[in-house]
Amino acid sequence: MAELVGNILVGQSGGPTAVINASVAGVIAEALNHECIEEIYGSLNGVLGILHEDLIDLAAESQQAIRGLRHTPGAALGTCRYKLKKQADFDRVIEVFKAHNIRYFLYIGGNDSQDTADKISKLAAAQGHELRVIGIPKTIDNDLPNTDHCPGYGSVIKYVATTVRELSADNASMGQGDLVQIVEVMGRSAGWIAAGASLAKRRDHPHDPPHIVLLPEIAFNPEKFAADVKRVLTREKFCSVVVGEGLVDADGNYVTADATTDAFGHARLGGVGEYLREILETHAPGVKTRVASLGIAQRAAVHCSSKTDNDEAYLAGQAAVKAAVNGETDKMVTLLRGEAEHYTCETGLSPLGEIANTVKKLPREWINEDGISMNFQFLRYAQPLIQGEVAVPYDTGLPAFVTLQKDRVDKQLGAYEA
Amino acid sequence: MAELVGNILVGQSGGPTAVINASVAGVIAEALNHECIEEIYGSLNGVLGILHEDLIDLAAESQQAIRGLRHTPGAALGTCRYKLKKQADFDRVIEVFKAHNIRYFLYIGGNDSQDTADKISKLAAAQGHELRVIGIPKTIDNDLPNTDHCPGYGSVIKYVATTVRELSADNASMGQGDLVQIVEVMGRSAGWIAAGASLAKRRDHPHDPPHIVLLPEIAFNPEKFAADVKRVLTREKFCSVVVGEGLVDADGNYVTADATTDAFGHARLGGVGEYLREILETHAPGVKTRVASLGIAQRAAVHCSSKTDNDEAYLAGQAAVKAAVNGETDKMVTLLRGEAEHYTCETGLSPLGEIANTVKKLPREWINEDGISMNFQFLRYAQPLIQGEVAVPYDTGLPAFVTLQKDRVDKQLGAYEA
Repeated sequence: MAELVGNILVGQSGGPTAVINASVAGVIAEALNHECIEEIYGSLNGVLGILHEDLIDLAAESQQAIRGLRHTPGAALGTCRYKLKKQADFDRVIEVFKAHNIRYFLYIGGNDSQDTADKISKLAAAQGHELRVIGIPKTIDNDLPNTDHCPGYGSVIKYVATTVRELSADNASMGQGDLVQIVEVMGRSAGWIAAGASLAKRRDHPHDPPHIVLLPEIAFNPEKFAADVKRVLTREKFCSVVVGEGLVDADGNYVTADATTDAFGHARLGGVGEYLREILETHAPGVKTRVASLGIAQRAAVHCSSKTDNDEAYLAGQAAVKAAVNGETDKMVTLLRGEAEHYTCETGLSPLGEIANTVKKLPREWINEDGISMNFQFLRYAQPLIQGEVAVPYDTGLPAFVTLQKDRVDKQLGAYEA
Repeated sequence: MAELVGNILVGQSGGPTAVINASVAGVIAEALNHECIEEIYGSLNGVLGILHEDLIDLAAESQQAIRGLRHTPGAALGTCRYKLKKQADFDRVIEVFKAHNIRYFLYIGGNDSQDTADKISKLAAAQGHELRVIGIPKTIDNDLPNTDHCPGYGSVIKYVATTVRELSADNASMGQGDLVQIVEVMGRSAGWIAAGASLAKRRDHPHDPPHIVLLPEIAFNPEKFAADVKRVLTREKFCSVVVGEGLVDADGNYVTADATTDAFGHARLGGVGEYLREILETHAPGVKTRVASLGIAQRAAVHCSSKTDNDEAYLAGQAAVKAAVNGETDKMVTLLRGEAEHYTCETGLSPLGEIANTVKKLPREWINEDGISMNFQFLRYAQPLIQGEVAVPYDTGLPAFVTLQKDRVDKQLGAYEA
């Protein structure tokens, strides 16, 4: 295979995770190892930065800043939820790649972003611009196929399980009357995050909180929910409920969907915690209910993130560069779990076309018969992903994050016309 | 002064904090130093445990467990929001104290709890039962008078400021359209917690988030709020808003009060974040608004608590025992800040009668003219309180907490009749 000499471009897309910047750090560190890679560019706000030719010189950043990316939340390059639709937009991307001699394009994102990467890859081939495109998985939702798990997931469930355990210690000590604590977590179409809260249970303590985990995989039944809550209250005096925002009814409709949708046509959700509170007011009057809605704090909580997750996100960034240099294209890096008892993880590759727009649901056989708790198969799966704590540096009492200096690459083309 | 020989009883009351158990640990450690203290008892669920004679033997707990109290959330002895009202209840307390030879009573709590302690102290004197009563301050609300600050406050604002800083890194990277992030925090009658979020600003970065802090001390004006948000959005593209739950309108009414009140007659609050979202939908249509409502996760977040706060809570527990042994009674331990540039803190004592049912408001002169940000006087006050990180032990990826074994003290009396 002939060596492909040129520049590399990395972009971030979709909602950030606690480790999305660790993947950028992995890309930069690995890119420096390969002489065929001349310049290391980042695009600001994903494909938007490509369309607008807003590129930055990542090799000009200090080593301190790149190291700091490993414990900085948000998307350091900026991100977007913009979906390339028009042919003119795709043509513009290739035009920008040609103008800046981009030969390696790495896109860090979830389902929709991998779809975008796939289309760019195919168009470049059709237009005869030699380009290697590798996707780097990223989503707290853990719903990408063909990968054992997704960078970002281990950190979000470490934070959620920590919060549930802390809240439960508080609930358990209140000592008066029945108390229900509802924690609303993210998870649009699969219950991976809500399920991950189950890790808060200590081993061999099945009655530990969370007592009820409500998943989009199981149709919600208000009467059963109220009965489950009452049963737990009788036993424990308090009841810890974790609910994923994507809860659906028996007809498959979101219980709290409102009219608006995002740029990709997904329904905007929220408020499922308050919805459950109202149900309890009707079906279990007199019970005191509290709702915590963590919102995007879940995906930004670097101060409580998983070292295993962080290391794997970094590894995925490195693996993407290695694969591209080795001639691979139109693939996404995957994480492969070893077969041994002791957890190990290495990277693989999977065609982008198989990733795009596919959702990996939580396996039904990992959910107990009761529909509200996870069995040992899930726990065995999830436990290794939250191991280890990221050593975030603190400055005067708070986590210290980095901001890139973002030296702009000179524009070569006219302004983008939307 | 004659030595008073007998048993000590410690109880916890009101909402837990991240460091309320550190005070218990301080009490136990110090009590062991004094031969005049024979038994070290804890009451389960505050005064309820006294009424029901539910006492436990704290000296029987392992040293490991007592050490673990320093990083265990909730109230390890159990807590309550029960208010002693009937004379019969007060009489029962003294009866229980006599039956168990309780000569030292330490009560860890906020305004209402100090009021209870004050009344018990006076009744014991009236009934000729020699008793030394010392209150130990505890409240995330930081609203007790006569003390520079309250154990529990430093930890809650460290967690809130950390969360605001992390959320803001996420917000800042979204790159498309105007985005408002509202974080709803606790603080019933004073804005101490919301104000503490200001620590998320880096020094000499006045435009850092949070951009707008809404305090109960400043009457809320919807039009001004919408204008403030729009001004920030023009400059930053995103706007970070922190709001205390006790926001009031120009007439002094809670903007979100509903009909119910708690056992102490305080209005139950909540939902102020959603209230602000609705205001923006009216006054700034098209702006995307997200709400995070941290709920009691704020006061339970030991994993992100302040070492300074933890140390001071422990110190307050020790100081209470020392004061009682030295003959003091009917006082609360206070925290006194040194005059020097470098932060120091020692303990003092203040009459319980001055503490009970008094609320310390945030000084108006610490709030900037704009009414939505804090000046250097507040920052100089709050900064030292969040310094240092509590080293929480992790077990298989999550913070490990302790549960006391709670050996019951034999009951000497008949059952309590409510």
